[in-house]
Amino acid sequence: MSKTTRRDFLRAAAVGAAAAGLSRSGWAHSKDVLASESVGMSEGHPFQMGPAAERRETKYSLGVASYTFRAFPLERAVELTRRLGLGKICLKDMHLPLDASAEAIAGATALVRGAGLDLYACGVIYMKSVAEVERAFRYARTAGARTIIAVPNPDLLPDVERLARETGLSVAIHNHGPEDLLYPTPRSVLDRIRDLSPRVGLCLDVGHTLRAGIDPARAAAEAGPRLLDVHMKDVTQAAAKGTTVEVGRGVLDLKAFLVALQKLGYAGVLAFEHEKDEADPFPGLAESVGYVRGMIASLA
Amino acid sequence: MSKTTRRDFLRAAAVGAAAAGLSRSGWAHSKDVLASESVGMSEGHPFQMGPAAERRETKYSLGVASYTFRAFPLERAVELTRRLGLGKICLKDMHLPLDASAEAIAGATALVRGAGLDLYACGVIYMKSVAEVERAFRYARTAGARTIIAVPNPDLLPDVERLARETGLSVAIHNHGPEDLLYPTPRSVLDRIRDLSPRVGLCLDVGHTLRAGIDPARAAAEAGPRLLDVHMKDVTQAAAKGTTVEVGRGVLDLKAFLVALQKLGYAGVLAFEHEKDEADPFPGLAESVGYVRGMIASLA
Repeated sequence: MSKTTRRDFLRAAAVGAAAAGLSRSGWAHSKDVLASESVGMSEGHPFQMGPAAERRETKYSLGVASYTFRAFPLERAVELTRRLGLGKICLKDMHLPLDASAEAIAGATALVRGAGLDLYACGVIYMKSVAEVERAFRYARTAGARTIIAVPNPDLLPDVERLARETGLSVAIHNHGPEDLLYPTPRSVLDRIRDLSPRVGLCLDVGHTLRAGIDPARAAAEAGPRLLDVHMKDVTQAAAKGTTVEVGRGVLDLKAFLVALQKLGYAGVLAFEHEKDEADPFPGLAESVGYVRGMIASLA
Repeated sequence: MSKTTRRDFLRAAAVGAAAAGLSRSGWAHSKDVLASESVGMSEGHPFQMGPAAERRETKYSLGVASYTFRAFPLERAVELTRRLGLGKICLKDMHLPLDASAEAIAGATALVRGAGLDLYACGVIYMKSVAEVERAFRYARTAGARTIIAVPNPDLLPDVERLARETGLSVAIHNHGPEDLLYPTPRSVLDRIRDLSPRVGLCLDVGHTLRAGIDPARAAAEAGPRLLDVHMKDVTQAAAKGTTVEVGRGVLDLKAFLVALQKLGYAGVLAFEHEKDEADPFPGLAESVGYVRGMIASLA
């Protein structure tokens, strides 16, 4: 861990400890969040919002992949996630370093849970040795996450499966883009895990799937019960050179994708990973979340 | 005009003159805007975006009421409107003072048009005397707007109609909430303009309509061809004490409203007027715009 990262993390952990003792009204924008909660948003429940959305429930819920906020400390990531009324968060290592002490992890997770967020997953975590696999499981268990979003070297999959069985954690292997040597497509993940425990599945990255020229709706259907997590985003082109944009501004057929998730009975999280505008991601994330909610409400 | 207002305006006008000589790449976030334009958004055209939206065109387009950005100077309002890929803007007097000189108006409108935005309307403008009616028309004409969003005293409606005929401008009278003495509901507008030229119509404020306990879809249908403009927002309750929130978080049945606009063949603007978070309105505006776009795409 670099000095800067460690400093940021210690600061976040300290704030976390402080935050655990704060009333909700001590949070910036708490009014916004409470307003959104009052119309039916809360952690751990299926997405539900406003009169249109109340007409039916989706089984999945909306959340954020904290990589979106990679330029910001954990407390800011948490605050903005709450402002959008999102109840679930997956922490990336700049917000929860892989080599953090148990005490530091406890401080960070207290900050997240004290804000009413469900720390459902950690990742994306790369694993290049058995020691790294073991560390990742220890870390995720200490953090109280239920799922690890992972990119394990394929020869480590037996170790990943063994630890998934032993710990009860799920592992969602993340597909990258066409240039990736390990997992360039959802199918490259599914092919490698076919004979493993159902605790090992896929984190379908919608953007990278499109960049590989593959329809995310079809990929979700192919994954079936192996679909354990989704990274929600949009891209400018269904080709390797496609770049990420706000959901609705790119080539994603969101309607087809959501219908595929419905058919599948998908009950996991759609985690927004907004990669554009690293220094100012919040408006684009908000636009993306709005777009998906509008589409969901319309499909109700 | 207060000293502060005048100072802000002169600053904006000076920036406007400077901006007119700037290439597009001189704008902050120009890449975002150009990216959004490249997927089909452009001024003066019906709303169109992404593969889903391309399947059909709505006749109306999306824009912003600059009151949303009342805490910011004009150049920032313009920059953020562009960042969202919105092509149309209605200027409120803090961005274009009613008593501005022709030169100052020219500077401000150069800034807006130089950024590729359609300055389709001015307002909301209150009119309490014949002199104020005349000033508003002179001002809107100098700014090159086609519509005045107005709250004229009812005894001035003959003057409003006369000047609408003479200038060719439209006047969209804005309904306020149930506490308003002049125009508490859309029907209170329609009742007063029934026998006037069709150039005089309604700016349907969706939020205030809900706050008066009236269904905006029904109000739009009742207005028919008199519907000239829409202020898009959502509120927490369909009652006087309802407060504005991001579209999708409140009680608005957006789907029913958009279907009503479709049936009507409404070809005007849905102008987002995001009143919440005056000091930081952009994320909420972005979420609202995303929500409406998602719903529109789904209805395609």
